[in-house]
Amino acid sequence: MTHRPGFTGSPLDRADRLRHDVEAFNGLLNDWRGRLLGMAGLDPQLDADGSLVWHSMAQAPLEAEFILLGLIEERPHFAMLVDGDSTPIRSPALWQALSLLPAEEAAIYGAARSVIDWHNANRYCGRCGGTTKVFRAGWGRRCSACETEHFPRTDPVVIMLAEHEGKALVGRQSRFPPGNYSALAGFLEPGESIEEAVRRELNEEAGITTGAVRYVTSQPWPFGGSQLMIACVAETIDPTITLDTNELEDVMWVTREEARAALAGEESAPFRAPPPFAIAHSLLRHWAA
Amino acid sequence: MTHRPGFTGSPLDRADRLRHDVEAFNGLLNDWRGRLLGMAGLDPQLDADGSLVWHSMAQAPLEAEFILLGLIEERPHFAMLVDGDSTPIRSPALWQALSLLPAEEAAIYGAARSVIDWHNANRYCGRCGGTTKVFRAGWGRRCSACETEHFPRTDPVVIMLAEHEGKALVGRQSRFPPGNYSALAGFLEPGESIEEAVRRELNEEAGITTGAVRYVTSQPWPFGGSQLMIACVAETIDPTITLDTNELEDVMWVTREEARAALAGEESAPFRAPPPFAIAHSLLRHWAA
Repeated sequence: MTHRPGFTGSPLDRADRLRHDVEAFNGLLNDWRGRLLGMAGLDPQLDADGSLVWHSMAQAPLEAEFILLGLIEERPHFAMLVDGDSTPIRSPALWQALSLLPAEEAAIYGAARSVIDWHNANRYCGRCGGTTKVFRAGWGRRCSACETEHFPRTDPVVIMLAEHEGKALVGRQSRFPPGNYSALAGFLEPGESIEEAVRRELNEEAGITTGAVRYVTSQPWPFGGSQLMIACVAETIDPTITLDTNELEDVMWVTREEARAALAGEESAPFRAPPPFAIAHSLLRHWAA
Repeated sequence: MTHRPGFTGSPLDRADRLRHDVEAFNGLLNDWRGRLLGMAGLDPQLDADGSLVWHSMAQAPLEAEFILLGLIEERPHFAMLVDGDSTPIRSPALWQALSLLPAEEAAIYGAARSVIDWHNANRYCGRCGGTTKVFRAGWGRRCSACETEHFPRTDPVVIMLAEHEGKALVGRQSRFPPGNYSALAGFLEPGESIEEAVRRELNEEAGITTGAVRYVTSQPWPFGGSQLMIACVAETIDPTITLDTNELEDVMWVTREEARAALAGEESAPFRAPPPFAIAHSLLRHWAA
């Protein structure tokens, strides 16, 4: 696959070894070469070329708390915690920014945003209700009462095309822009394999029965938390559709030619494809090739 | 692959549609055909044949809270919440039980155990510190103060063999029984793809550099929470070992013949392989074949 999945290819060395070393972390915080990711609320700041903006550390407020995103060569890169509770998950400005950002830069922003969201959702300890405090270079919170350590989490999501007689199943939710269709998707549940989650979701949402599942690719998705998108193709055994109208407004079977027309943005295509930074785009592209 | 990965193949229909319907759930709770999973603390109860034990619902205490595991034909199957804070994660009795349980039954137990663990870790709301209460047929908790809804989560873990000149890299942690080696593994972090996490973990733990990553298979792992184990093989670019001795005590490159001898439990094998219910077993088996 020559197309790089969205939010992948970050040039940062995450430098896990330095997170555990309080002295090393303080050294990096006070390193004059340090850079701070520019954000507007939870959205990325972009410069005139459509690239991420990096500030100096001195531009942070005195009470700021930091996440060590990692190193590029010797230079430490940080993000700052922001209270994002009143920010919409997906603003039009954000979607526009993502259409400009190269995947490698979106990957840096995505990691920062996911960890910031996680801090906001974990100010209190789930075990005892005590307040938690940042530790491990921004990659953890420790409970002040029971000392439970909490670490940033990622939710696996399966996203898949069912395949039948040379066609693939795409669907649309009512909140999608008119004409847009995508691959079906859903959260993997405790106690399931990837393959089992793929078959369950296709059955729940579209009523179809599938068998063998092939893994295709994966990427992070940093909106509304931290998701690991796992893209697969499933062979259809029974293609009879029974739509779960709480989840989907419509589904349709499309040919490879129709998928290619949609990915190329042709007017005559029977649907509009997801943007290149969404894994459904990579998955459709892989399948249509 | 004819070998079924551990904790997969559950015969239960998870019946997500019924979780959202309070009336339907109450109907199932009071259905005389209902069965309750037998547990001893967090461990499964086994009968004389090495199968799971199912009780009637009437054997639960009056204040019990239930998880709807799903249906087999018309019959509802439940598990009961247990406070497991003082229970060891892995008892010798548990490991013995798992060596007896078929994967399909271990899958039922695994789902129950992961969801029970999740309830115990989420009695308070991470956003506001309020107390949470069970809802959605045991597949969620809602905050009594801010009404945030929380759902059972699963942490993706990558587990992989690096491949170099016909050999695969296995390693051992100091807590392993003498002679045991397994595939290297680690939690996927926010902002990473599966492929990126595989390369980072191999580099952090063993110092090697890897390139292309092939997905092999996946399975749940229900101990100490809920993990999704994602098994891969990575092509090695630079095989020079630099061991992270905080994580691993030793690593070694093994041939397919040596791996097959270990999987067969031969005395002469250079290491002892992980048990069949661990995905490292399935991964080694796939690679050695």
